[in-house]
Amino acid sequence: MKLRDVTLRDGLQDEKPIATEDKLAIFDALVRAGVRDLELNSYVRPDRVPAMADAAELAAATRNVEGVERWALVLNTRGVQRAIESGMDRLQFVVSVSETHSQHNAGRTPDEALREIEAMAATLPDGVTFEVTLSTSFGCPYEGPIAPSAVLRAAERAFAAGARAISLADTIGTGIPSEVASLVKQTVPMGEVGVHLHDTRGLGIANSLAAIEAGAARADGTVGGLGGCPFAPGASGNLALEDLAHVLEAEGVDTGIDIDALVEVAQLACGFVGRPVESHVGKAGRRFSKLSERP
Amino acid sequence: MKLRDVTLRDGLQDEKPIATEDKLAIFDALVRAGVRDLELNSYVRPDRVPAMADAAELAAATRNVEGVERWALVLNTRGVQRAIESGMDRLQFVVSVSETHSQHNAGRTPDEALREIEAMAATLPDGVTFEVTLSTSFGCPYEGPIAPSAVLRAAERAFAAGARAISLADTIGTGIPSEVASLVKQTVPMGEVGVHLHDTRGLGIANSLAAIEAGAARADGTVGGLGGCPFAPGASGNLALEDLAHVLEAEGVDTGIDIDALVEVAQLACGFVGRPVESHVGKAGRRFSKLSERP
Repeated sequence: MKLRDVTLRDGLQDEKPIATEDKLAIFDALVRAGVRDLELNSYVRPDRVPAMADAAELAAATRNVEGVERWALVLNTRGVQRAIESGMDRLQFVVSVSETHSQHNAGRTPDEALREIEAMAATLPDGVTFEVTLSTSFGCPYEGPIAPSAVLRAAERAFAAGARAISLADTIGTGIPSEVASLVKQTVPMGEVGVHLHDTRGLGIANSLAAIEAGAARADGTVGGLGGCPFAPGASGNLALEDLAHVLEAEGVDTGIDIDALVEVAQLACGFVGRPVESHVGKAGRRFSKLSERP
Repeated sequence: MKLRDVTLRDGLQDEKPIATEDKLAIFDALVRAGVRDLELNSYVRPDRVPAMADAAELAAATRNVEGVERWALVLNTRGVQRAIESGMDRLQFVVSVSETHSQHNAGRTPDEALREIEAMAATLPDGVTFEVTLSTSFGCPYEGPIAPSAVLRAAERAFAAGARAISLADTIGTGIPSEVASLVKQTVPMGEVGVHLHDTRGLGIANSLAAIEAGAARADGTVGGLGGCPFAPGASGNLALEDLAHVLEAEGVDTGIDIDALVEVAQLACGFVGRPVESHVGKAGRRFSKLSERP
């Protein structure tokens, strides 16, 4: 089972920028903990997202690390150019499947966004692959529930455009296990399906397990649960990767990740950002790990 | 699906005592929110557990509330007497299935504890029923993993002694969905099975859903996730009842509970105790409840 760490992009993008060398320390620690798939950066306007201003430096500094898939989020052709120029060859495009959210967030309809993705995909040089993240797949902050048919249509177009995979993203944390399982089952026949699930309503783990059981090939998380656009003070956004890795290990699913080492990455990353480690396993430790210390 | 609120006993027992009238306000609010099954108190030594010193007053004050099952935790014959004298007719006995935990915690072996339960059960007057909670069913702080056979033997003896139900309790939060489902499936043929699952490692919801799917008739929680012997600062113990009620409602399972009202109980109870509401739904609200307020 592939777990993707999205700390360096999704976990940090809304934070006060941290030093590039601190990001590299997180990257190195993630790789040492066994993470083999990660979101590294995004090529967006530095004046809009200052935390991502060092995207090219980060790409250059991590270029020769073997065995790690590094993904870059790109929103337009300028981003594609910058990502490729700095040596990234795995790109993530995004389309919000909700009409209203897409208009509010990106100033275009889902159809227009998909057409732009199709156009960008057609111009990628050999050796550059892409994925498409379908945001608001399980609910929209403006429209509420989203028709699965809208997600399926977008997924079909993404694969038809040559996407290596799609991500079903629960942008506002409204998905529930039955809905997550259902959408995964319906998209898996089209190609590789990953899930990006938030823990806003405490369902990040249950939804991820439902997705994996339904055939998802990958699930996302950030160390310490960093980031993920929480919309209420104290409400969590991203799922803590160490919590997911922990239950998968306990269930006998191989993720290649050393849980204790991942908890140390969480402590490191949260320290840089100045936030407490919000994960359960980060606070309580692995099950059966410290028997004599317990009450 | 029956959800049992255990705030007034398990949620409060390790807290600084709150006023009896505050407990009654919580009780009334729980009933108004649709809770029909709750742990009310425990008959233990007031010098050992001062927060439970008003057990008899609480029993008397709630005696005539219709349609609500009120449960009292009792540890010995003195507790049984006091509970019955104050008008309680639903008793919870406890046995730890772990030899070491049972010795450390109760000064007797599981076999001795079960023999005491059998003796107490034999003397109960007509109209008084009991359940048996099997603590450390999914792991022990001293021994680590617990053999399912130990749980099954204890469950058989509990039902043979006349227990109306058993509770499989994940005392230190080490259970995982496959293990929870397996134990529930193996005990359900014996009689009514409830689960008391902690959220220590973020698995409270996933484990509860696994238990329910496997045939559990009841699941426990406290409003706001209060109590539950967290053994690390900030680590959660009890599962937040509103988080569980929320996902069940979304999945179309009838619990009879009004989620928004239950969140208000959480705010009330956490206010009395002086702790923040730690539930996800308490912080973020129900899914699709406040669309226009979202980013």
